[in-house]
Parts: sequence; structure tokens; C-alpha cells
Amino acid sequence: MMKVTKCLMISLLMAFVNAASLAHTIEIQRIHPSNWWVGMKNPNVQLLVYGKNISKAGVSVSYPGVRILKTHKVENPNYLFVDLGISKTAKAGTLSLVFTNGDTKTTQKYVLGTKRHIPVTVNSSDFVYLLMPDRFANGDESNDQFADMLDTKADKSVPYFRHGGDFQGIINHLDYLQELGVTTLWNTPVIENNTGLKKELHGNLQAAYHGYHFSDHYKIDRRLGGNAGYKQLSAALHQRGMKLIQDAVYNHVSEDHWMFVDPPAKDWFNRWPSYTGSTHKEQAIADPNGSESDRKYLTDGWFTPFLPDVNQRNPFFATYLIQHALWCTEEFGLDGWRIDTYKYNDMPFMNRCNQALMDEYPNLLIFGETWVTNPASLSYFVRNNVKFPLQCNQPGTCDFPSFQAINDGLRESFGWDTGINRVYQALSQDFLYHDPTKMVTFLENHDTDRFFSVIGEDFNKYKLGVAWLLTTRGIPHFYYGTEVLMKNVKNPTDAEVRKDFMGGWKSDKENKFTAAGRTARENEAFEFVKKLANYRKNTPALHSGKLMQFVPQNGFYVYFRYNAQKTIMVVMNTNAEAATLETARFAERMAGFTAAKNVLTDESLPSLTTLRIPAMTAWVLELK
Amino acid sequence: MMKVTKCLMISLLMAFVNAASLAHTIEIQRIHPSNWWVGMKNPNVQLLVYGKNISKAGVSVSYPGVRILKTHKVENPNYLFVDLGISKTAKAGTLSLVFTNGDTKTTQKYVLGTKRHIPVTVNSSDFVYLLMPDRFANGDESNDQFADMLDTKADKSVPYFRHGGDFQGIINHLDYLQELGVTTLWNTPVIENNTGLKKELHGNLQAAYHGYHFSDHYKIDRRLGGNAGYKQLSAALHQRGMKLIQDAVYNHVSEDHWMFVDPPAKDWFNRWPSYTGSTHKEQAIADPNGSESDRKYLTDGWFTPFLPDVNQRNPFFATYLIQHALWCTEEFGLDGWRIDTYKYNDMPFMNRCNQALMDEYPNLLIFGETWVTNPASLSYFVRNNVKFPLQCNQPGTCDFPSFQAINDGLRESFGWDTGINRVYQALSQDFLYHDPTKMVTFLENHDTDRFFSVIGEDFNKYKLGVAWLLTTRGIPHFYYGTEVLMKNVKNPTDAEVRKDFMGGWKSDKENKFTAAGRTARENEAFEFVKKLANYRKNTPALHSGKLMQFVPQNGFYVYFRYNAQKTIMVVMNTNAEAATLETARFAERMAGFTAAKNVLTDESLPSLTTLRIPAMTAWVLELK
Repeated sequence: MMKVTKCLMISLLMAFVNAASLAHTIEIQRIHPSNWWVGMKNPNVQLLVYGKNISKAGVSVSYPGVRILKTHKVENPNYLFVDLGISKTAKAGTLSLVFTNGDTKTTQKYVLGTKRHIPVTVNSSDFVYLLMPDRFANGDESNDQFADMLDTKADKSVPYFRHGGDFQGIINHLDYLQELGVTTLWNTPVIENNTGLKKELHGNLQAAYHGYHFSDHYKIDRRLGGNAGYKQLSAALHQRGMKLIQDAVYNHVSEDHWMFVDPPAKDWFNRWPSYTGSTHKEQAIADPNGSESDRKYLTDGWFTPFLPDVNQRNPFFATYLIQHALWCTEEFGLDGWRIDTYKYNDMPFMNRCNQALMDEYPNLLIFGETWVTNPASLSYFVRNNVKFPLQCNQPGTCDFPSFQAINDGLRESFGWDTGINRVYQALSQDFLYHDPTKMVTFLENHDTDRFFSVIGEDFNKYKLGVAWLLTTRGIPHFYYGTEVLMKNVKNPTDAEVRKDFMGGWKSDKENKFTAAGRTARENEAFEFVKKLANYRKNTPALHSGKLMQFVPQNGFYVYFRYNAQKTIMVVMNTNAEAATLETARFAERMAGFTAAKNVLTDESLPSLTTLRIPAMTAWVLELK
Repeated sequence: MMKVTKCLMISLLMAFVNAASLAHTIEIQRIHPSNWWVGMKNPNVQLLVYGKNISKAGVSVSYPGVRILKTHKVENPNYLFVDLGISKTAKAGTLSLVFTNGDTKTTQKYVLGTKRHIPVTVNSSDFVYLLMPDRFANGDESNDQFADMLDTKADKSVPYFRHGGDFQGIINHLDYLQELGVTTLWNTPVIENNTGLKKELHGNLQAAYHGYHFSDHYKIDRRLGGNAGYKQLSAALHQRGMKLIQDAVYNHVSEDHWMFVDPPAKDWFNRWPSYTGSTHKEQAIADPNGSESDRKYLTDGWFTPFLPDVNQRNPFFATYLIQHALWCTEEFGLDGWRIDTYKYNDMPFMNRCNQALMDEYPNLLIFGETWVTNPASLSYFVRNNVKFPLQCNQPGTCDFPSFQAINDGLRESFGWDTGINRVYQALSQDFLYHDPTKMVTFLENHDTDRFFSVIGEDFNKYKLGVAWLLTTRGIPHFYYGTEVLMKNVKNPTDAEVRKDFMGGWKSDKENKFTAAGRTARENEAFEFVKKLANYRKNTPALHSGKLMQFVPQNGFYVYFRYNAQKTIMVVMNTNAEAATLETARFAERMAGFTAAKNVLTDESLPSLTTLRIPAMTAWVLELK
């Protein structure tokens, strides 16, 4: 925070005087973005300047190649928007913004760095690990809680409170992740969530331990390690050749966000006469029979009573959000973005935002959380092959249809539309997507029941599900702890599926980060994931190879991943008994192959005419 | 059948001589099409000439404006294909086809009529009635059975046998249909099914009473009234301003079809080393991850062991089928085609066939039975908005997704994805279709459980379902007897849902064609359908008016049909109790309206602010 007064005496005097007479005080609390870069493709940046009555000030700059294009006032006099033009000739350095109000003048330093970051593409060669920093590992107990924040208490014994996990905790376990085969880290949001406990759906007082309640876009939460800690995490990852995905929330902010406390204008947030929640019914937006009002309820309705819905049609707020995304990418060296609650956003805004990111960082991965299990309805929100009146430009998206299919399918017995047929049928609709290889596949996430519980803790189903995830098309992501059989359902609340990773806290009695701390079955699970993830890492056929799937029959689901160099055959027997598969039906992909290596066991199969597969088992075969 | 021998003596002699020595006999059993027309847009017609060793004959014609373009032989010498070119100057009349083999010559008369038929467009202003002629009414007992046919017995007491219904029976009850509000008749197929009893899935010996087992394309089944009787039915309908839809089967024929008994070539039918049924899995055809072999299993696999699968890639058979469709349209004055088992056909063939029909008869309705309940998968088979590599040109199709939705939805209580939400969600995917108004909607058909049984014989649900069908977008069709609450499920067999319409047979003890023969509840049902169907008939807003549907909430589903003249509001309370609906949410469509007429009761509603709707009830309100 920056506070400048002409002199201390005047300042003290002012405190006793009516605000209206304070025209000549210049008090600047924030300039956002907090810094910027030369070398960006877009030569303009719009500074949000926040300070008491700042709109009454004039502003000037004197720096080679940089000029003020325009200033904008909004309803609230505490805001001034300053459009800077940064020419190609401008060099990195520190410029001075001079604010003038009558005979009062104040100068703000503003740093222009040099754009250097080039993201490393996250694609289907990767294995993404989603974790909640507060719940993974506590590497620095000194940052667990701060008395000057609205939520003052970390308490590991309360499921709904913060538990103290942080970036240092993650850094401490990068060996673990890399051993597992993880290439890319996705944290739930790291932006400051300085907000009090809120009463959640089930009546529990809950902290924003998950990170989705932003209070200041330009601060990384101190309790995770702050901006500096986040940079250390990014550097540590990149040193290992690993990549970093950040979790964005454009749709809403915390009610404790400073911009909601003192909003720039009435239309900064979507307001309703009385509290109006989103319908959550995304159908309305693509439905040619839909109503305008239902579209408005979906996108402008609030996510919860304490999460004000951002009006992304406000051009200043839109620019603010877009620049923040660019800022994070450059500042922290991001390789990808996951976008929260995608379907609730204003789609023209999302298109602008994605495009701005892709213009500056062409090989950045962007994928949204679009919780829609119907492929056709989902396709609206991602680059697609459907002639929608508006075309969304989201390159990939979380693949909720296949997530739902594998979770439902493994609970059911095989039938016409049930069991593993669900997975086949979900993938058969890939014609809807422009690029199915950018779909981000998963078995569970922080908002779902844990996969291992969904499948009744059936270890065979677990291995089959993992084998599917790591061999089907798309970019697979895990949720922390899946590899050590973490379980639970969202009953009574989400916190049940966001338990601490055991071993991440000094007080933990067990340490699942080490083989010695894991049970035999947990080690079997860990080794299974590790084996397949590392095989996958070195097998381009499982990244960019084509997928060919065959109609499931008799409980068998068979598909191939193949390129000119290698053909991988995946055979799933989803029956409750061992069964034999005749392979003649798959000649189209098996021609020329007579033997195989079982990737999971390293065993050789001398013949492929028939395959005898144990009950509820997936074989991953490298054909020879 | 036509049989010509040079002279009787030679003919008798020939019977005792080896076939190889019969080179000079010309025996013509069939020429298909049996007749043709001048004035067709396509100036060419390909005659299939069938007769023993006919391929050895030459053929000539001498008729102004008609010439033989080419003749084609195929593997089987009993076939000769003759391409006729009919110029624009050719006049109607009877031409002579002269077949010559050595010094033997025979002349076949061939009639060229004048193309006159202009179909009356069947569209969403219509109300289509599907019936099975054998099961509706027996107007002519003299044609119930024929000793010279493979299935010799009509027996009303056996569910699986023919029962004797016919065209005359339908003609006798056109007053009934017209009173109900029906505008268009769709019979299950009327082409000859001269085939023996076949063992069906459940082991019953079953006749082809339903009409789907063609034995000769150019004969209308004698037991229904033959070609002449069919023309009478068509004329009777058109005299009343009613329309006629024919049911086409391109995918397969009966194993007793003369062309399967003596096939023109090995590739005339899709043959397999051993019996291979279709997988019925249509996903394979549109799936970019699909295999060629699964596509082949779907389309070339047989529908049943006794229904040979037509190879529509054979150009002669393709032309034969297309010309047959054109022939029926002109010969019998058809207004539309329903196409059986659409998804099992070869799509390039279907496109050619549809296009040929639309070229000659631009306002003909064509819609297929594409039993696919997923809108995205269904959209492949109809004109759509998806960038599929192959674009199907089927203008409309049976709307299986909304059928499934209303049937499932009314069995369930209201939930996030359940109950009436299913209907909302099905229609919300209309973006997939090029023209949703051409979707043919229905509650049940001859292959499904009867709607009234599905909904547990709940009369409120029945009325709600009917109200939905007659007010949503699309072309609604009924299945005979729905209006008098005919019920049953397909257990043990399909025959359960194909019972005789009571009153159609002299021996029937009750007559549901008359109010006196119906129970009080049956009359209530009949009057409900009649009231709404006739209101619909005269309300363009329910034909071509736009549909706007709102997100269902609290068990209420509300939608509007509207044009510049009229706004119809449909309010469904699907709760088990009466409930009150606040209508403020629908201001977008209700602005300017303050009162309404309840179309079903003729009551006036003086205020629309809130609506108190009884349990499980649909109101159809004409806004004032």
C-alpha cells in the first residue's frame, strides 16, 4: 500500500476536516497492475489507480516511449483509470507517474520489466496433479496464520478451517511428485483470500482454505507463502522441467474484496433487488429455445450469497481481469490456466480474455471447469464443431462427461447403455469438440466424491480407472492423494474430500510420502500409478497417438493408441469373472502384430489370438 | 407377372430340355418399375428386367422421345438392366420394348403416364396418426387370407398372426380420425410381405403382420387391399384434405423376397461368413475414434437372421430402391415418407435417395426412424449444425430424445436432471439440428411400451403428456389407440403393444370408435385429445410459432409458443400437489398480457400474476 501526503501536519489537520474540502490531498493506495513489461504484443496497459478522491487528480508521465493515452473517471471518485501506451522502443526501467491536484503533486514509481516468460506447453504428454495447497503439506509453520487477517486461525482439527499447508510444503515434496510421474502442478487458487469465516450450505463456519474467495488480485496469499513464495515454487518446478498451472476465478470475488467494499461503480457487480443465486442451468445459454432471463440468471446470478458476481461486461473490470491474468503469467512464469466456474462467466468476455492470453503466450494451455456432463451442452463452452451463434475459444476443458462416465460406469454392471459403455459413448461424441486431445480428463477433483469411495474401495476398479485415465486421449489430471487411495464422499461437506495429505504436517502420525509410511495396498496403488505414468511419459503414442475404440461387447472394452512407431492396445474386462477375448474383431489395428509386452507387469505375451483377462482388469499391451 | 413364350408348343417342349440349350427362349417375369412417367425431372429410368436367361437378349425400343441409353448385365443371367432416356418431348403412352435373342423376339408393353402428383406438405401444422393396418379395422373379410401365400392364415386369436385389418377398414373410420383432429395418416408398411411365419426373439412363430418384411416392392399386400385398395385409401384421404405417409424399408428385405431367392449378384446383399447381426451401436458411425469394422457391423450386419441386409453400395440395387420410392410417391399420391431403421442404412445411399425424392417432389416430408436417444448422436443422421465429415440430408427424424425424456420424466419425481427437466434438457439441444420444427415428436410407437402403461395408467400424467406433445415444437404423431387409452408393455413381445383397435372387427364386443362404446374415462381421453388437436389445427402459433422454454423450477415447466398474432403459454405443474406459480420470471413473453383463456376448459383467467395449478396438470393458456 502506498500513502503519500503533502506533509504530515496537513495530513493530521485533514483528519478533522470534512472530506469535501480535501480536494488537494492525493492518497494512492493501489496501482494495478502493480508492475508491467515492455515487449508485450499489446502495447497498452490500463492502470487502475485507487485512492481517496483520486479521480480529481491529473496524471502525467515522462519516460521515453511511454505516454498516457487517456484517463477515465467512473462513478466512485476513489478510482482513476489511466491508459498507458508503451511503444516498441520503450526500455525496461522505473517510470514516474505524477499525480497533480491543484498545487498538490505526488509521484508514484512504476516498474516496467522486460517480458521474458515463454510457457512450456502443457499438453497430452503431461500428467497434471491438482492439489489444494492448504491441505497438502505445511512446509512453513510461521505463515499458518496472521492476526491482521479476517480469518485469524489455522486449526488442523477443524475440517472447515485452514490447516497451514503452503508452497514450501509443496517444494519439499516435488521429488515425491516427480517419482510418481507428475509433470505439471495445478494448485487450487493462490490469490489472497483475506475473508472471514462464512456459513456454508450445511451451516458450518468455513474458511476460504480452498482459495476461491479472492480479496486482492495482486497478492498471493501470505499463508501460502506470498508472492515471493509462489515465485520460489515456480522456479523449483521449472528447474525440474515441471510446469505450473494457475487456477483463475473470473466469475466472482469475495464480499471482502476491497473492490466490493468500495466499488468503482454500481455496475461493477451484477446486482439484484434481492439475493438471486445462479440457476446453474447452463442449457439456457446455448438453447435456441432459451430465454434471455434464464441466460441472465445463469451468468449474473450469484454463486453464493458471499461471492459477488463480477459484471464482465463492464469494460474496466474486464480489462482489469484480463491484465491480471497476463500479469500472473509473466510475473510467476505460468504454463497454463485452469478457469473456475467457466459456464457462469460472460462468454464474450471469456473469449477476449483467452485471446489476450493466447496472443501474448501462444503455447499457454487454458482449460476451464465447465461442469457439464452432456458433451453437446459442454461443447458450447469450448472450441467446437457446432454452428453456435457465438463461438467460444476455450481450447480445452475439464472433461466432465468422461469423468461422469467412468465414475458411473464402474458402479454399474455392463449393459446396453451402462457400465463401461458409458465411457465408450462419452468418447464417441468427440466429433463435437474441435480438439479432443485438449480435454482434461480426470477421475475426481476437489468438488467431487473421491473416486476410491465411489467405486466402493474396489482395488481392481481403482486400477482399471487409473489405467483408463492414463491411456485414453486427453490431458490426464490426478487429485492429490488418489495415488495413496485417499477416500471419502462429500457428506456432510466438501471438506471430507479435502483432507490433509498425511505426512505433510509434523504432527502427522503417518507419512504417505514415503513407502515406509504407506500400507502395502497404498504402495501397490502408488507403484501402479508410478509405473503407468512413467511409461506414459516416454510413450508418444499415448500422447499424440490416435485413439481407436471399439464397441464394447460382453463386458470388454478395447481401444488402441497408435502412431507410426508404436501401437498400444488397452483391453478392459469389466466382468466380475475372468473372461477370454477373441481379438479377430480388432484386426484393423492388430494386423502385423503377433506378440505384446504387458506394460503393467513387463510380461511377454507370445500370442494375441485370444486374451484371457482376469475379472475387472485392464491390460495395457505394447504390441510387437 | 409376365410370361411370354414364342409359342405354347415350344414352351412345353422346353420344360424337358436342359436349361443351357434354351438360349432362344425369352421369358420375362418382371419389369421394375412396373410403369413410369413423362415429366419427371430426372429424364432417366433404369428398368430391371427379370426372366430366365434374359441377359442373353438384346432390347430395343421405338417410341418418340424415348431411347435406350445402355444395357447392363450382372452375374445372374436372369437379370438385365436397361437404362431408358425419356426426353422432354416424350408424351405419355404405351411403348413397346422388343427383346431379341437370336431369331426369337418378344415384345413387352410399358406404360408411360404423365407425372401429375404434387404432395401436400406435411409439417408442424399436422397431427400424424400411425397405425398398423392389420390391427386397426377389418373392412373387407374377403382379403384376410390367401391360400397361395406363404403365410396362409389370419387368426385374430393369436397375437403373432395376421388379424385381417385392411385399407377398407381405415377408410371406414376416416370420420373418426378426422373428428379426433388427425390430418395425416402413416401406416406401417403396405408393401407385400409374402413370407412365412418366423421364429421371433422370444421363440414365437410370428407373421409379418406389421409389414416390415418386403417380398416384392411393386406389390401392395393383397391382404390389405392391394395396389387398387391403396389408391382408394389415398384418394379418400386427399378428398378430405388429409395426407398420406408411407413407411419405407431400404435396409433389408424378407428372406422370401424374390430377389433374395434368386439374387442378381453376390454383392446384392451384405454377406458374412456366418450369421452376423448388426451391433445396433450407431455411435461407431459418427465417432472420430471409431473403427471401420464397427461401422461395417452396424450397417452391414443383419437386423435379424431372416432379414437379408441390402447392399446399398451396389449401384443397381441403389437405383432400384430409389426408383421404387419415386414410383410409390407418384403411383399412390404420397405426401411423406417415414424411413425404417434409418441408422442401419448406408448414409451416402440415403442421401442420394432422399435427394432424388426431394428433387422430384420438393415439398415431400421425409423423416426416419433413427432410434437414438442422445441428441448429439442422433444429429448425425439428420440435417444438422455439426461439422461432420459426411452431412446427412434427412430433413427431419423421429424425435427419440424427447420421446425418451417425456416417458422417463413422467415416471420420476422432479430433480436436477430428472422428471420434466429431461424434456427441457432434450429440447435445449435443438442447436444440433438444422430445423427442429421437422422433428417428429411422439409419446409411443409400435416398437415401444404403450405410454399409458409407462406412466402407470395415471390419467393426469396422460393428459400432461398429450398436452406436451400437441404444444411443443415439431410434428406430433400419435399411435393408434392412444386416444382411447390402449395400454400394455412389450412383455413378452411386441405384439402386446399392437393389439387390435376394438370395434374394428365385426366380432368385437366393444366399439371404441363410438362414444357409446367407450368408457367414461376413454371418452374423457378422446375428448381431451380432440379438443387440443383441433385447437392446434387452427392455431398457427402452435405450428410455426417460436418456442421459448424456461428452466424448470420447483416441479414447474413453463414454455411459450408465439408469433406476432398469438402467444400460447403452457404451464406444467408436475408436482404431486397443487402449487402456485409466480409468473414474474416469464415477463419476457408475458409483457402486455393480463388475462388468458384456458384452452382446455374454455375458462377465462382474469389475472396472470400467479397461477394455481392442480397436481400433475398442464394448462394451455391463450394469452389476452
